[in-house]
Amino acid sequence: MSNTPLLPLLLTVVEAGATLAFALSGLLEAARKQLDAVGVCVVAGLAAFGGGTLRDVLLDRRPFFWVAHPEWLWILLALCIAAMAFLRARHFAPTQKAMLWPDALGLGLFSATGTQLALAQDLPGIVAVLMGVITATFGGVLRDIVCNEIPTALRDHQPYAVCAFAGGWVLVGAQHFGLPPSAALVLGAATATGLRGLALATGFTLPRWSSS
Amino acid sequence: MSNTPLLPLLLTVVEAGATLAFALSGLLEAARKQLDAVGVCVVAGLAAFGGGTLRDVLLDRRPFFWVAHPEWLWILLALCIAAMAFLRARHFAPTQKAMLWPDALGLGLFSATGTQLALAQDLPGIVAVLMGVITATFGGVLRDIVCNEIPTALRDHQPYAVCAFAGGWVLVGAQHFGLPPSAALVLGAATATGLRGLALATGFTLPRWSSS
Amino acid sequence: MSNTPLLPLLLTVVEAGATLAFALSGLLEAARKQLDAVGVCVVAGLAAFGGGTLRDVLLDRRPFFWVAHPEWLWILLALCIAAMAFLRARHFAPTQKAMLWPDALGLGLFSATGTQLALAQDLPGIVAVLMGVITATFGGVLRDIVCNEIPTALRDHQPYAVCAFAGGWVLVGAQHFGLPPSAALVLGAATATGLRGLALATGFTLPRWSSS
Repeated sequence: MSNTPLLPLLLTVVEAGATLAFALSGLLEAARKQLDAVGVCVVAGLAAFGGGTLRDVLLDRRPFFWVAHPEWLWILLALCIAAMAFLRARHFAPTQKAMLWPDALGLGLFSATGTQLALAQDLPGIVAVLMGVITATFGGVLRDIVCNEIPTALRDHQPYAVCAFAGGWVLVGAQHFGLPPSAALVLGAATATGLRGLALATGFTLPRWSSS
Repeated sequence: MSNTPLLPLLLTVVEAGATLAFALSGLLEAARKQLDAVGVCVVAGLAAFGGGTLRDVLLDRRPFFWVAHPEWLWILLALCIAAMAFLRARHFAPTQKAMLWPDALGLGLFSATGTQLALAQDLPGIVAVLMGVITATFGGVLRDIVCNEIPTALRDHQPYAVCAFAGGWVLVGAQHFGLPPSAALVLGAATATGLRGLALATGFTLPRWSSS
Repeated sequence: MSNTPLLPLLLTVVEAGATLAFALSGLLEAARKQLDAVGVCVVAGLAAFGGGTLRDVLLDRRPFFWVAHPEWLWILLALCIAAMAFLRARHFAPTQKAMLWPDALGLGLFSATGTQLALAQDLPGIVAVLMGVITATFGGVLRDIVCNEIPTALRDHQPYAVCAFAGGWVLVGAQHFGLPPSAALVLGAATATGLRGLALATGFTLPRWSSS
């Protein structure tokens, strides 16, 4: 995983971008549910760090991202305070729609890093891909559970976890066929984000199945 | 725990049977809540692997069942796809009732293996029994939480976790009094499943207590 | 952390008091939601041990409080059975209000011990304070999630986690400026509980921000 000195930097940049995107989605959801200041910070934090932290607990990795980089907790806190001030001043009406695009970015970025971290522990492909999907989607799942809703990712018939799943397999395949990890990472993340963006642009939904 | 070469095989068979039973209960619950394809897989997976994975996180055991046996992730995926095709074709109406019997089987099997794994770490009896109860019930609890319901196990006044609790103590007692682990395992699992079956057959409920 | 022989005893007494207070809050919430006997025990247990156990999973600490002191599981069980007998006999109507005071005590006690345990692992101040907040509030958060409500701590605009946050920083500061750990612990816990009590007494709420 370290045959290029660029990779650690790239991983950090990728994780930072994804973290901000997910925090924003959590923040908007908390605003939509009219939570208080603490709720906004907690839901934003869960959305941002929940998926990666759950992955690290499952993989028994320490330290967590937010323990190794505690400055991110300050950034999150500042982001939440700024957003609350901004939202109060502008009477901004957060919508489902505004949440979709930062989500799509985080989806690709988190799934690729999660899959690659699992591969670095020599886990089988299907487990690595699943770890990527968990990294990418369980922040949002925890966000929705805390907000007392059935997680959007599990019920809206839109390709979401499925994009992370596909991106993960692209990464696993790319690395298996000898691409350098950094290229595999970019390819996997681009696949997942691209598929999600395509789904959003075309309105494509998963084939429905009816149980009644 | 290894005084008989049959035990590892028995443990694997038991865990496999329980996994399928719980996956089915999750699948039916997801169908009842009209989740999408991803939701069906996630809820089935949580119901099947959630209790055992939580137990392993608490006991700090690795690898998880589904990491050591990644083929089970494929089996689960195939099961969900097959069920969705079948449910679509037949307009099958899943009912609470259909979920009760696979649940009863998994209850006995998971509680016995969970208790025995904790005993193998020399944990006290009450903790081992609790680990068995967690293994057996928290897949279902997580399933219901994700589906945005108060977990059935905590509110329906039916003996469920209580059966796992009783079966766990039978296993602890049997092993304490010198029975071989495989016999203790069967005895504990049979007690829990038997009690649950008896409760379902007779309609017995826990004594009610009123708070208002 | 061990420059006084009193500290371990003090930590144990503090954790015991907080555990009872949180178990009671869980018990009352379960009663209010009309859960069955198993639900009462599980929700009381989650409220009592959930925050500390989550902290220990995150810090990778073993054994858990309730594994090292399994007698507490028996105490909890006895408490729940006694409460159910008492509640049945007296037709006691549990109210939100009755839950507030045991909660305030547990808030201070758990946040201080959680922060101090994290500091003992040389974690940065913000992470230590966050661990204190998690210890103090996530028992209640898990209690509310299982009871299918948006956690009170995140939506009622009352200072709750904020008090734990403030108390944690007082502890971190006190220890940084050379106070013995036992004094820092008492100071942090008193700050958090005192702020919470003050908020309850005065009806002070967090400044509202509106998103619509």
